[in-house]
Amino acid sequence: MAQAQITLYTAKVCPYAQRTEIALAEVGAPFKRCEIDLGNKPEWYAPKVNLASKVPALAYGGPDVAPENPSPESTKLAESLILVEFIGDLYPSSGIVPADPVLRAKARFFIEVVSTKFSPNFMKFATGNPEATHAVLLSSVEAIQDLIPEGAKYAVGDQYTIADIAFTPFWARLSVLAQKGIGAYKDEERKSFLKGLEDPKYAKFNGYVQRLLERQSFKSTFHEDVVEEVFKRRFGLAK
Amino acid sequence: MAQAQITLYTAKVCPYAQRTEIALAEVGAPFKRCEIDLGNKPEWYAPKVNLASKVPALAYGGPDVAPENPSPESTKLAESLILVEFIGDLYPSSGIVPADPVLRAKARFFIEVVSTKFSPNFMKFATGNPEATHAVLLSSVEAIQDLIPEGAKYAVGDQYTIADIAFTPFWARLSVLAQKGIGAYKDEERKSFLKGLEDPKYAKFNGYVQRLLERQSFKSTFHEDVVEEVFKRRFGLAK
Repeated sequence: MAQAQITLYTAKVCPYAQRTEIALAEVGAPFKRCEIDLGNKPEWYAPKVNLASKVPALAYGGPDVAPENPSPESTKLAESLILVEFIGDLYPSSGIVPADPVLRAKARFFIEVVSTKFSPNFMKFATGNPEATHAVLLSSVEAIQDLIPEGAKYAVGDQYTIADIAFTPFWARLSVLAQKGIGAYKDEERKSFLKGLEDPKYAKFNGYVQRLLERQSFKSTFHEDVVEEVFKRRFGLAK
Repeated sequence: MAQAQITLYTAKVCPYAQRTEIALAEVGAPFKRCEIDLGNKPEWYAPKVNLASKVPALAYGGPDVAPENPSPESTKLAESLILVEFIGDLYPSSGIVPADPVLRAKARFFIEVVSTKFSPNFMKFATGNPEATHAVLLSSVEAIQDLIPEGAKYAVGDQYTIADIAFTPFWARLSVLAQKGIGAYKDEERKSFLKGLEDPKYAKFNGYVQRLLERQSFKSTFHEDVVEEVFKRRFGLAK
């Protein structure tokens, strides 16, 4: 299906931005990729692309121009979850937005749990907020696990969807940080989290996240070296 | 189109719940309505319908049973915005979820602004939180107004959509509270807000919200007497 041009403004370190890159990889959409240095954003970015000055953002349609000089004729869209659904809506046959309304609602509910329970606890853990103990993180893992149907490969069934896309970049970052000891948390908390996760009661979750990290669309859009380097600078050196 | 049964668990006072009632009215879906007393929730509600114990929630499909005795065979869904999209997805010809992916993304972005900028300020204003001054509320109004295309009847064009549905119940409540002086705020703040809103620079917004409140699906699902009574009890008597 021929589509209008897509330019994605993104950053390798950012989990929100990676969501949109995974979605584009899943649907196989051609697009221009423009890396934004989050520590030193170009002056044109906020006024011409996203007033909120965040990544990801997307320019859709309009003439074929350099990303640094976006056309006023393209539609500018922002917010990672909105972009992920937009990309799925452009390519309905990809199935990342399930065709069945009930599965769609379940995928969105899974995303709601990721957004309200998992990702805030991940950020608190990384920054060493004492509220985010290993027990709190494990309870987020349990909230996610409870939603996965028995025997299913992914969040809402055997089809990989927007629900999995929303979660994967956050889990991948937590995984790297916890395994490499990067973050402002206490080292006992990190060890207790990793140890806790080995409990057989998390078998369903562990199988699920293993499949997420094996997915080609994830691997081709994850830059572990950049994540490691930036998070070390931001949250404290490895212990 | 014949649909599986829908049972809606709702409460007249609640703006989140009213979103789903407006959506059901817009698409013309038959459904059973079950009012939940939020001050005294029935014991069966959390375990059998929504573990989070909030309204709205929806039971979809399964046998035709009394709402008070929901069947384990029906699918239970929750979260107002998810339910509104679900209802639109069941009845695509209603147009409340726009068919065009760009308009869909714009509708979702409008909802994001309602959820992050408008509804939190409305709640703070009603409860007398000194952060939510009339100036802050007016800036929320401006953020909404900026998104409405010039000359459009509704949030993203001339079609009434999920974006309008998400906003209407909150605006209706703020309107009643501010006009009747119900709330824990200072009376000067209320008067300054109403006065500020008369500025010609808000003409686009004022035209928009007038159309929202004239919509039949809103009028048939808004219970001003209940809203007034409950908010008086909750936030302080009229001044």
